[in-house]
Amino acid sequence: MVDLIEKKRDGQELSTEEIQFIINGYTDGSIPDYQVSALTMAIFFKGMTEKERADLTMAMVKSGDQIDLSKIEGIKVDKHSTGGVGDTTTLVLGPLVAAVGVPVAKMSGRGLGHTGGTIDKLEAVSGFHVEIDNEEFIQLVNKNKIAVIGQSGNLTPADKKLYALRDVTATVDSIPLIASSIMSKKIAAGADAIVLDVKTGAGAFMKTLDDSRELAKAMVQIGNNVGRNTMAVISDMSQPLGFAIGNALEVQEAIDTLKGEGPEDLTELCLTLGSHMVYLAKKAETLKEARALLEGAIKDGSALESFKVFLSSQGGDASVVDDVTKLPQAKFKIELEAKEDGYVSEIVADEIGTAAMLLGAGRATKESQIDLAVGLVLRKKIGDKVQKGDSLLTIHSNFEDVSEVKDILYSNIRLAKDAIEAPVLIHEEITE
Amino acid sequence: MVDLIEKKRDGQELSTEEIQFIINGYTDGSIPDYQVSALTMAIFFKGMTEKERADLTMAMVKSGDQIDLSKIEGIKVDKHSTGGVGDTTTLVLGPLVAAVGVPVAKMSGRGLGHTGGTIDKLEAVSGFHVEIDNEEFIQLVNKNKIAVIGQSGNLTPADKKLYALRDVTATVDSIPLIASSIMSKKIAAGADAIVLDVKTGAGAFMKTLDDSRELAKAMVQIGNNVGRNTMAVISDMSQPLGFAIGNALEVQEAIDTLKGEGPEDLTELCLTLGSHMVYLAKKAETLKEARALLEGAIKDGSALESFKVFLSSQGGDASVVDDVTKLPQAKFKIELEAKEDGYVSEIVADEIGTAAMLLGAGRATKESQIDLAVGLVLRKKIGDKVQKGDSLLTIHSNFEDVSEVKDILYSNIRLAKDAIEAPVLIHEEITE
Repeated sequence: MVDLIEKKRDGQELSTEEIQFIINGYTDGSIPDYQVSALTMAIFFKGMTEKERADLTMAMVKSGDQIDLSKIEGIKVDKHSTGGVGDTTTLVLGPLVAAVGVPVAKMSGRGLGHTGGTIDKLEAVSGFHVEIDNEEFIQLVNKNKIAVIGQSGNLTPADKKLYALRDVTATVDSIPLIASSIMSKKIAAGADAIVLDVKTGAGAFMKTLDDSRELAKAMVQIGNNVGRNTMAVISDMSQPLGFAIGNALEVQEAIDTLKGEGPEDLTELCLTLGSHMVYLAKKAETLKEARALLEGAIKDGSALESFKVFLSSQGGDASVVDDVTKLPQAKFKIELEAKEDGYVSEIVADEIGTAAMLLGAGRATKESQIDLAVGLVLRKKIGDKVQKGDSLLTIHSNFEDVSEVKDILYSNIRLAKDAIEAPVLIHEEITE
Repeated sequence: MVDLIEKKRDGQELSTEEIQFIINGYTDGSIPDYQVSALTMAIFFKGMTEKERADLTMAMVKSGDQIDLSKIEGIKVDKHSTGGVGDTTTLVLGPLVAAVGVPVAKMSGRGLGHTGGTIDKLEAVSGFHVEIDNEEFIQLVNKNKIAVIGQSGNLTPADKKLYALRDVTATVDSIPLIASSIMSKKIAAGADAIVLDVKTGAGAFMKTLDDSRELAKAMVQIGNNVGRNTMAVISDMSQPLGFAIGNALEVQEAIDTLKGEGPEDLTELCLTLGSHMVYLAKKAETLKEARALLEGAIKDGSALESFKVFLSSQGGDASVVDDVTKLPQAKFKIELEAKEDGYVSEIVADEIGTAAMLLGAGRATKESQIDLAVGLVLRKKIGDKVQKGDSLLTIHSNFEDVSEVKDILYSNIRLAKDAIEAPVLIHEEITE
């Protein structure tokens, strides 16, 4: 092992067998933490070649269970987002692409953050549950083209162990390690093809377009090198996506979007990501054709119908789709009024997310309870003209005194005197 | 700790308090190996500033016991060599500088390597021992100006732990870490001033003059920054120093040298290092004056007398000095004859040392037994003219079949057709 650390330290390429040896040894405990942390720090400085990244990804995939989706008909395309604030795309995309025949076999989690995970959000629909077994899951996908199951099995244990180590040794910020980590999880979960939504900007993990592009390229290369058709969209996260930040609020926003009445940016991003999913699933010959299929599914109501079938098949009360007041409602709806005239110049996504979490929309620790009803709904976005007294956003809260939340919001929604342009939503599409 | 790793990773300077926090935490076990190995790898890439190196050195000094030599009169100057093959300088320098009044309070060890450590070598003198207590040690130095004691106490535990970790995480080859490690041990052992013999060339840890100079400067700066007058000589180790490689053989060579009859290179290096020791001990106003004192001590027999008194004061049979046949003698003396005419062009010091170890002169593991009698005595050095049949060296062995040793020697003492110059012995002297 010490020779392999030295090899990487001196900028040489590790072979497939050497990377397997390291990952197997680390997983079974025969290679100690202190050698792996020295290696990851060497990787931080020296990087990894395209071949090394693919080898690391597959070694991590093989370190644990792999989900077998072969009994599902068609090409299973998974979508992954690098994470942002108010990102309702998963809730929209699932039923949307399922409506045009793309199988969506989603394994999802809860997790920490500003709002809950996909499963938390869906549980805002009364009766909905993900406690189904693998066989039922596969049957549902074959029948409805969409189902969601909770994470189970021992997927990529090497990645879990390595991530925990990187977290305490200042080696998280390494593009090859981030890329291999994400891709190993998607591949172990059974994806045949992968569409990546790499967020960029103040509210994203990658703050600059350069870093986002580098991460996107790294992941796309890994996917294509290990036989999974992969592409990435670099999308804007300089402000929250859409309007809603909160669990039931995002379900409502997803319903609006599936009806064709959603926020412009969320709709556009879903159509872009969805087109690539449809194309990679070979349900359309061109991206243009794919987009037309999706637009048609929104227009003719089949996307919304797909959402209803999906919800009711997993115990959910699908009537919420026609009557969103059946979703959990917060006791108090409080407007955040603009204190002056101007144009919205900045909405600091991270801090807005923190405000939502303070209301109870997200978990700070694994033990935290989520309040599905609460959250924020933006009324203005960057570039919008504002007059003193206009509502900047609506606070949905189950407690009346939201002064602390308001303070955070006021200092993170900034106005400028002069007109400002809305940020570009989709920066780049990367296919190699 | 993770913030400190990140700070170093990003090339920022760690403060005195931060370095103390790391070293204290590592020594007491509250900071785990895996964080320290990530940090040392970051240091490998990012280096350390002059201030950080001094801080690290003193943090390691303070991690354990410090030897108190204050009851010894005069300035205690220690000499340290970065290690080579056939390096008899310590045996010569002790009695030599003691003879002109410089106090030599030497703490020494056994260790692994081509030959034994200083204590092993001295034990070739019948009766000699280092089992004396601290009080007797100090009395002997005050009386005779020289004594040697075995290593005791818990010196620089942080350095021991850190070195063991670096050894298995490919972070040994870091100049700031090497320099701090060496200097911390010398300072904890009580040195007021330090003369460093940094070896350079194929047989040395530092193979190139540039690396040797960098290490020398790093150590000299640390010493001077923490209030210990320090200088370094960069000396040649492209071939073994002197002629003898082996324990009793080196004692005999030291006696020859103290009589003024030693090998030219060994004598010159001892006079150079010794002059600096005398000068730093303030026993001479100039280096020239210091050298004259040492040359006088060899000429008038006082250096040899100093060696005798030293040996007998620690139980040794000083009569070996007048009759070296009383030293352990090997059963077989076998000449290695030149197979052709030519000029010696290369004597690969490392491999020659390995051959000596195969004869039994050194320890491969801690449990190995040393044979004090055996070793090698070079008859020719680089640049010497050789005729077919001339002895290149004499093998002193206690077993008759030395064919394996001969094979190694023949392939590592190379002859050239054309005349070749002897290598420069002293490359540089570094005082800041």
